[in-house]
Amino acid sequence: MTAAESVGTASRSTEAWQILERARALTEPELRRAVDRLAEPVRSVAAYHFGWLDEAGRPDNGDWGKGMRSALVLASAQALGAPPELAVAPAAAVELVHNFSLVHDDLMDGDVLRRGRHTVWAVFGDTQAVLTGDALLVLAMDVIAERTPRLCRAALRELCDALLGLVAGQGADLAFELRAEVGLDECLRMAAGKTAALLAACCALGALAAGVDDQQVARLREFGHRIGIAFQLVDDLLGIWGDTSATGKPVGADLRRRKKSLPVAAAMAGGSAAGHRLAALYRRVEPLGDSEIREAAGLIEEAGGRRWAQEEARRQRSAALDCLTGTTMTAEGVCALTAIADLITGRNM
Amino acid sequence: MTAAESVGTASRSTEAWQILERARALTEPELRRAVDRLAEPVRSVAAYHFGWLDEAGRPDNGDWGKGMRSALVLASAQALGAPPELAVAPAAAVELVHNFSLVHDDLMDGDVLRRGRHTVWAVFGDTQAVLTGDALLVLAMDVIAERTPRLCRAALRELCDALLGLVAGQGADLAFELRAEVGLDECLRMAAGKTAALLAACCALGALAAGVDDQQVARLREFGHRIGIAFQLVDDLLGIWGDTSATGKPVGADLRRRKKSLPVAAAMAGGSAAGHRLAALYRRVEPLGDSEIREAAGLIEEAGGRRWAQEEARRQRSAALDCLTGTTMTAEGVCALTAIADLITGRNM
Repeated sequence: MTAAESVGTASRSTEAWQILERARALTEPELRRAVDRLAEPVRSVAAYHFGWLDEAGRPDNGDWGKGMRSALVLASAQALGAPPELAVAPAAAVELVHNFSLVHDDLMDGDVLRRGRHTVWAVFGDTQAVLTGDALLVLAMDVIAERTPRLCRAALRELCDALLGLVAGQGADLAFELRAEVGLDECLRMAAGKTAALLAACCALGALAAGVDDQQVARLREFGHRIGIAFQLVDDLLGIWGDTSATGKPVGADLRRRKKSLPVAAAMAGGSAAGHRLAALYRRVEPLGDSEIREAAGLIEEAGGRRWAQEEARRQRSAALDCLTGTTMTAEGVCALTAIADLITGRNM
Repeated sequence: MTAAESVGTASRSTEAWQILERARALTEPELRRAVDRLAEPVRSVAAYHFGWLDEAGRPDNGDWGKGMRSALVLASAQALGAPPELAVAPAAAVELVHNFSLVHDDLMDGDVLRRGRHTVWAVFGDTQAVLTGDALLVLAMDVIAERTPRLCRAALRELCDALLGLVAGQGADLAFELRAEVGLDECLRMAAGKTAALLAACCALGALAAGVDDQQVARLREFGHRIGIAFQLVDDLLGIWGDTSATGKPVGADLRRRKKSLPVAAAMAGGSAAGHRLAALYRRVEPLGDSEIREAAGLIEEAGGRRWAQEEARRQRSAALDCLTGTTMTAEGVCALTAIADLITGRNM
């Protein structure tokens, strides 16, 4: 990277954080309005999940995440000439879908922490987690039906496709836990469902809100899909080599759980001696200790899994940006989406 | 009941079973097509729930319930002049919604049997039950979006309202379990959400498919709502005094679980001595034995809970049928809906 490129990246990063902040500010009132429609006790549980209330029902930090998905909807719409108010409802819908999947996935995966707080099931029990996730999913659909009359059918199909992808991806992820090895292709399909499908839908929904033709909607969908795959690759790299202070996860957390993440699948797929040793380590019944986690990380690197994931993330990011050419997008719009893409895919690799 | 009325009721009952059978035959291909879109392993789990596959993935009895909800959609549409093919997609959607709620409710309630088979969570675990319920809910929305382009927005709002009712009703039902007493009003609101909301949506969706005006849609919605309340009252009576061979539930099952059903809430609300003794029995920490269950049933009867529930069910059924007058419904259509209403609300009281 040249010095000029580095300055460019830094200013794009500042721009991206500002875009995310504006998107959160636009989306939050719509989210609150939706959650307010729920009956108690589900309303309070949902408000806890969004950080608006604490466990005892008092106001809390209000941290409901980076708002990356709503930002992609709003930035895509704006880049294609739509005023933000046309895209606020789909922006809220994708955050509701995302948070539905977080509430249910945390329960299914047994995860007890999210955004530095206890997860819904850990505080309120399994039952409230099932019910609250269901409620958020219904609200997502209803926001679309109520607030985007013109787009209703196309937007709904876009969201349902993403949701079927999410379910398929989570199903595959859970099935992988019971297996010693998974192929790289099926691991990529899992990531396509679990992560990329909703990001693809976000960008397509923004394009739909802008009223552009099907071909442009498809290009935005592909942009989101590729950014999503790149995001998952980076997330998987961070799960192995990430800085705890940046990720909030213990170093090697994914290896300790013997997660079949993309770098692991790539390392095993290569057929190298290191890949075979890694597979043997993953087949062991006993829990992995710190030294074995270090060994596993070394084997993934030796087998080329780390380098492949880094290169594939860069390739996907680059192919994603190519999707933006050939659209009627403003130069400013291209910059905004590039800034978000860089933020999503460039986390401390 | 006069002899002539009795013959009329018997022939209406035969007619109702035939209507249900035809509705199931029309709806099933659409349901199978929807479930076939799911990825494994969720597809097989969903197919197990619908009785198409057994636990090992072999063909099974194919019993996915009476199909009461799809029959209400189809009969409402037909009674208002729509050909059935216009209403098949919403009919499949309401069955998908109903079965989503069964899969999640069985998990939340810890119920191990449904339609004479083990429930999804009992066979495949909590995780697959969460995921499969989610998948059925998404399919319901997608069937509406894909197959009813003209109705999409109105149908979706109708379904979402019912779903928010279902979530609120299930939330209240779970909350009631932790309380010694519940008021009759809140118990009726719970039944309105948990049972009546979806039946109301069924009839409204049928009317929407027939393209009638908002006023007629509202009358059909109210018809379904009142039939739903009556259905819940009858179901609650059967949960206390029902014949095991007809209900498939042990006698007094609801009392053993100290369920705050409508006859119980009515008995407690009356302020009678029997009502107070019932409340004291419900407040006890120890499990209720057979003699206490008989005592509780006697107290509910003495406090007027049984009579109130029987009369309220009749009143709701009658008010439901009043909703059909003032519509453009054919006489044949009125008879068909009356037959279904009688079947739903007249079970061996």
